[in-house]
Amino acid sequence: MSTAAVAQLQAEVNRLRHELSTVKAHEQSPESGEQIFVGQYLVERLVQLGVTKMFGVPGDFNLGFLDFVEDHPKIDWVGNCNELNAAYAADGYARVKETSLGVVLTTFGVGELSAINGIAGAFSEHVPVLHIVGVPSTSQQKNKPMLHHTLGDGRFDAYYRAAEQVTISAASLESKDTAAAQIDRILTDCLVMARPVYLMLPTDLAYERIPSYRLKTPINSNPPDNDPDVEQFALDEIVKLVQEADEDVIILADACAIRHGVKQEIAELVKRTGFPVYAAPMGKTAVDESYERYGGIYVGSISHPDIKEKVESAKLILSIGALKSDFNTGNFTYHIPASRTIELHSDHIRVQFAMFPGIGMKRLLPKLTTRLQPFHEGAKQISVPPFVFPVPQEDNDIISQSWLWPRMGQFFRPKDIIVAETGTSSFGVLEVPFPRGAVFVSQILWGSIGWTVGSTLGAALAGVDLGYKRTILFIGDGSLQLTVQELSVMMRSGVKPIIFVLNNKGYTIERYLHGMERKYNDISNWKWTQLLDTLGGQEGKNCLSYLVRNKSELSTLLDDPTFAAADKIQLVEMLMDPRDAPNALKRQAELSGKTNRYVAELPSGVGEAV
Amino acid sequence: MSTAAVAQLQAEVNRLRHELSTVKAHEQSPESGEQIFVGQYLVERLVQLGVTKMFGVPGDFNLGFLDFVEDHPKIDWVGNCNELNAAYAADGYARVKETSLGVVLTTFGVGELSAINGIAGAFSEHVPVLHIVGVPSTSQQKNKPMLHHTLGDGRFDAYYRAAEQVTISAASLESKDTAAAQIDRILTDCLVMARPVYLMLPTDLAYERIPSYRLKTPINSNPPDNDPDVEQFALDEIVKLVQEADEDVIILADACAIRHGVKQEIAELVKRTGFPVYAAPMGKTAVDESYERYGGIYVGSISHPDIKEKVESAKLILSIGALKSDFNTGNFTYHIPASRTIELHSDHIRVQFAMFPGIGMKRLLPKLTTRLQPFHEGAKQISVPPFVFPVPQEDNDIISQSWLWPRMGQFFRPKDIIVAETGTSSFGVLEVPFPRGAVFVSQILWGSIGWTVGSTLGAALAGVDLGYKRTILFIGDGSLQLTVQELSVMMRSGVKPIIFVLNNKGYTIERYLHGMERKYNDISNWKWTQLLDTLGGQEGKNCLSYLVRNKSELSTLLDDPTFAAADKIQLVEMLMDPRDAPNALKRQAELSGKTNRYVAELPSGVGEAV
Repeated sequence: MSTAAVAQLQAEVNRLRHELSTVKAHEQSPESGEQIFVGQYLVERLVQLGVTKMFGVPGDFNLGFLDFVEDHPKIDWVGNCNELNAAYAADGYARVKETSLGVVLTTFGVGELSAINGIAGAFSEHVPVLHIVGVPSTSQQKNKPMLHHTLGDGRFDAYYRAAEQVTISAASLESKDTAAAQIDRILTDCLVMARPVYLMLPTDLAYERIPSYRLKTPINSNPPDNDPDVEQFALDEIVKLVQEADEDVIILADACAIRHGVKQEIAELVKRTGFPVYAAPMGKTAVDESYERYGGIYVGSISHPDIKEKVESAKLILSIGALKSDFNTGNFTYHIPASRTIELHSDHIRVQFAMFPGIGMKRLLPKLTTRLQPFHEGAKQISVPPFVFPVPQEDNDIISQSWLWPRMGQFFRPKDIIVAETGTSSFGVLEVPFPRGAVFVSQILWGSIGWTVGSTLGAALAGVDLGYKRTILFIGDGSLQLTVQELSVMMRSGVKPIIFVLNNKGYTIERYLHGMERKYNDISNWKWTQLLDTLGGQEGKNCLSYLVRNKSELSTLLDDPTFAAADKIQLVEMLMDPRDAPNALKRQAELSGKTNRYVAELPSGVGEAV
Repeated sequence: MSTAAVAQLQAEVNRLRHELSTVKAHEQSPESGEQIFVGQYLVERLVQLGVTKMFGVPGDFNLGFLDFVEDHPKIDWVGNCNELNAAYAADGYARVKETSLGVVLTTFGVGELSAINGIAGAFSEHVPVLHIVGVPSTSQQKNKPMLHHTLGDGRFDAYYRAAEQVTISAASLESKDTAAAQIDRILTDCLVMARPVYLMLPTDLAYERIPSYRLKTPINSNPPDNDPDVEQFALDEIVKLVQEADEDVIILADACAIRHGVKQEIAELVKRTGFPVYAAPMGKTAVDESYERYGGIYVGSISHPDIKEKVESAKLILSIGALKSDFNTGNFTYHIPASRTIELHSDHIRVQFAMFPGIGMKRLLPKLTTRLQPFHEGAKQISVPPFVFPVPQEDNDIISQSWLWPRMGQFFRPKDIIVAETGTSSFGVLEVPFPRGAVFVSQILWGSIGWTVGSTLGAALAGVDLGYKRTILFIGDGSLQLTVQELSVMMRSGVKPIIFVLNNKGYTIERYLHGMERKYNDISNWKWTQLLDTLGGQEGKNCLSYLVRNKSELSTLLDDPTFAAADKIQLVEMLMDPRDAPNALKRQAELSGKTNRYVAELPSGVGEAV
C-alpha cells in the first residue's frame, strides 16, 4: 500500500473516531441538547480560534485528553522532545500566527515545571500561549494521595501557585458545570491581553459530558471599547501637538504593536500621513522594512548616528506599543523627553505627561489616521535616512560579524521568517533591512538562550499555514546545545528551515559581558554537520548539512539556487572567531557590565576580578 | 608543551588567582580581621561541606561569582548544556555523595526557571540541593528597571515566589551584614532536612567584603537532639512490642533511610539483631543487597508472592524512612495495619497509632540496636526467602524484558552505581539483586523522564570522589531524547558511564497506561550509535557505541572484559519490542489507569475512547 493511501486511511480512521466520540458524548445524556466531552469542547474552541498545531509531551495525566487531539481532523499533535522546547514552539507559533494563539500541553508537575521558563518568556514578551496541564482526577485532588509527580507532602496546588507568577490568568477545572465558562474566560484573557494563561485539566473531567451550545458563540477576542468622550479628548490633544510640532513628527513602532495586532493599523497610518517611521529592536518588522518612509532601527545611544539624530531631534514622537527594556533601548539611553512623546499602548495611552487609562490603540489608531491625514503634505517634506546596510569590502576571508549580516541581507527574500537567537545573532541582524513581508522573530526582553530552536519549529509550522516559504534561523553553537533535540521534531513535522550555526566556540555574548578568556564561557565542539543525520534525518535525502569556513564558501552557498530554495531542512555550520561580535552587542555589553558591577571596585580601578 | 604541563600551568594560574583575590578582599578593608568576598565565603562553605563540583550554566548575572568558582583549587565548574540537566546532575551528585550536597548555579529568570523541575524533584525525593541564582545587583532590585530576564512588569520577586513552592528554605541576599548568616542558615536547612534550598546572589554583593571568621565554625548538619524522656519512652514501647511479637519482626528500609543518612545505622541494626530486612523500591540499596538476611523488594500487591507473604504476615514491621508513594507501594496496596507497624522517620516516629514528634531516627537507631540486640537468637530463626533472579531460558533470541534484567544482574559488580530511568528500566531492575556496595539511583516518586541523563553525570562525578568504578545507566529512547545533550558534558568531564539505551520506539510506559497504538506515544528513531561521536566524542578513541539486536549479541558484549572494564564512555543500543514491559510495570499501569479514569464510562463498558 502506498504512503499516500495509508495516510488517507489514517485520516479516515481519525475522522470516524472523532465522529464516534461526538456521538458517544451525546449518548445516554441526562440533559437535553447536543452534548460534548469537556476535552472536546476545549479542542473545538482552539480550532475555532485557528489553532492547527498543539505542542507538548505526553504524560500519564494527559493521555486521555490527547485522544481528542489526535482524532480531531483540524488540529495536529506535534510531540516535542521535551516540554521546554514545546513551550518555546508554542510561543514561536503564536508570534507568527498573529491573530491566533500557541498551545502547549504537558503533564502535572514534572512536565509543566519543565515548560515554565517558556511560559514566563511568553508573559514577558506579550505572547498569547495557552498552557494546558493534564492533572490528577478531581477525586485524587480532593483526597491528595502521594501520587508520582507530587511533592510528596499533599500540596496539589503548588504548581498552580508557581504558574500564577508567570501567567495572566489561570483556571483549575473542578466541575463540569463551570468547565466551559472557565475555558472561555482564560482563552479570552489570553487573546485580549496577549499573554499566557494556565489551565489544569483533570483526567476524569476531560471525559465529562457538557452541553455544546456555548460553542455557537465565538470567543470574543476584541479589545474593550474606548470611552468615546475620553478618546475624543485624547485625539484632539494629539492633533494639537502635531500642529504645534510643525509636522516634525516621527512614528516609532515597538513590540506591542506586533503582539497586540495593530500592524495593519500602523501601515495605514504611515501611508496616509507620510510621517517617517522607525522601529525599536523588538518592533522590527512591525512596519514593512521595504517601505520608502521607513528609516530603520532606533536603540537609543547604540543606534546608527543618522537614525539617532533623526529620532531624537523630532519635535514629536508618536510611539506605538513601546516596551522599554534594557536591550530594546540601548540600556535605557533614549534621549526623548516625555514632553515630546505620545505613547499608544494596548490598554492606555499617554500624551506627554497625561495618562488615559482604558484607551486602547487598536480602536484609536484608525481614528487617529483619519485625523492626521491632512498633515500629509507637510510630513512628506521630512527626510528619512535610507535604511541600507551595504556589504563591506574586507581584506580577509574570515566570516566576520561586520560582513556576515549585510551579506545575509542579500540572501533574504520577501516573506521570509527570520529567527535570531539572543546573542551575536539578535544584535547582528537588527541593522539588516528585511524584504517586504518578512517577519522577525527574536526574544530581546526575555533572552532565554536556546529559545529559537523551539520557536523556529513553531514559527515554521505557523508559516506553512500562512503561506510563508522559508524560515531561517541564526543561532550560536552555545545556544543550540541547550535545545538541540528539537531539530528532530522539525524533521518529523516536515518543516524545512535553514539553520545557520555560528560556531564561535562558546558563549560569545557572555565573553563580552565578563570573562573573555574564562573557561566557563567555553563549550564542547560538536560535529554539527552530523547532527541532522544523527537526530533522525537522512543526510542527502531529507536533510543537508554544510560546513563553511570563509566568506567565499558562504557566498557560494548563498548564491546556490538549490540551497536558497529551501526544499529540505538545511544546517550550515559557519566557523567564526570567538572574540568577534557585532558592534551593537559590544556597546550593549559595555553598558550592562557597568551596571552589574561584577567585580570589586579596587582603588587601582575596575578590572577583572582575579 | 604537553597537555599535562599545560594543565599544571593552568592549575598554578588558578591557585595564584585564588590567593590574589583573597589578598585583595583583605586590602583596603575598613574593618579589622581577615576579610573575604561574599562569593568566596559561599564557595568556601561548599568546599568545607565536601562539594567538589558545581553544576550549572553561565549567565550574565552569575559571571562574576563564577570567577571565584573557577579559581578555587578544590571545586570544579561543570558547565552543563542546559539548566534542567544541571539541576538533575546536582541531584544525582547529592544522592551518591550522601553526606554532602549538590549545587547548581543558574542566572536570574531564564536560567533558574529552566531548572525548577529538577529542584522540585529534589524536594519530592528528599535530596539536598543548593540552587544559587545570580540575580541583578541590589540597586537594580530596588529601582526595578525593565532588565532583560525580567517579566517586564517590575516584579523582581516572582521567581523567588515560584521557588518557594519547591524548596524548604530560601534567601534573597540583600546586605553584606547578613549575607554570611543567611548562607549558613540555608545550608543547614538543606543538609538537616535533606531538601533543596534557594539562594539569590546579586552581582554586586558577590564582591562585597565581609569578615571571614565565621568560616572557622563548621556548618552543623546534625539533626537536632531527641528529648531524652520521650526517646526513652518510645524505646520502651518498641521493645515491648518486639517482645509481644515473639520476635516475629521484619525491618523494611525505604528512601529516607538513604537520604537522611542512616544506612550505617541500619546495617548495624540488622547485623546485631538478625531480623530479616526488606526494602521498598525507593529504599533499594539502603541495605546491602548481598547481605544474607536481606529478602528483596516489597511493593505491596506487586511484590514477589514469597516476599509479600513474609512481609505482610510478620507480627511487627519496623519501617525505616518510609515514603509511601503510589509507585513505591504498588499503588497503595500495603497490607500492613498500623497496629503492627513502627515507623521511624527523620523528624518523628510512630509506634502503632502513637506519634512522637521531634524524635529522629538518626539518634534513635543506635540506641534501638543496643536494646534489640538481645533478641538476636530468636530473630535468627525466622527464615528469609533467598533474593535471587535466575535468567530464564527463552526459546527466542529477542531481548525481552523478562530476560534482560536478570541477565544484567550477572553483569553487575560490587560498587557499581546503577541508574534506572522512570519506565521499563526502573521497574525492570528492581527485582535484580545488586552486588555488595552497589548503589541504586532512580526517581520513583517524582518520575521526571530524562532525569537520569543529568543525574548519571552527577552520580558518576560523585562516584569518582568516592572510588566507585562504574556507573551504569538504563534509559529508554523516549526519555533520552529529553536531555540527550548531557552526554556531551559526560565526555568533557571525563566520566565513563555505560549507557544502555532500550530502543523500543517510544514511550512504552505510557503505552501501558493508555493509548497502546496511539501515534502520540511514538517518537523519531535516532541513529543512537552516532550520538556520542556527534556530541563531541571521537568514536573508537574516547567513546564506543554498539548496536545489539538479540540476546546473543548482548551476552557476547557483556562477557567482553574490555567492555566491562568501562575505560571509555560506552553507549549500547538494544533493539526491543515496543509492547514488552516488565511485569511490575504492567501491573502498576493497570492499577494507575483505573484511578486516572482517562475515558468515559459508557454503558457498554470501559474501553479506549474513540
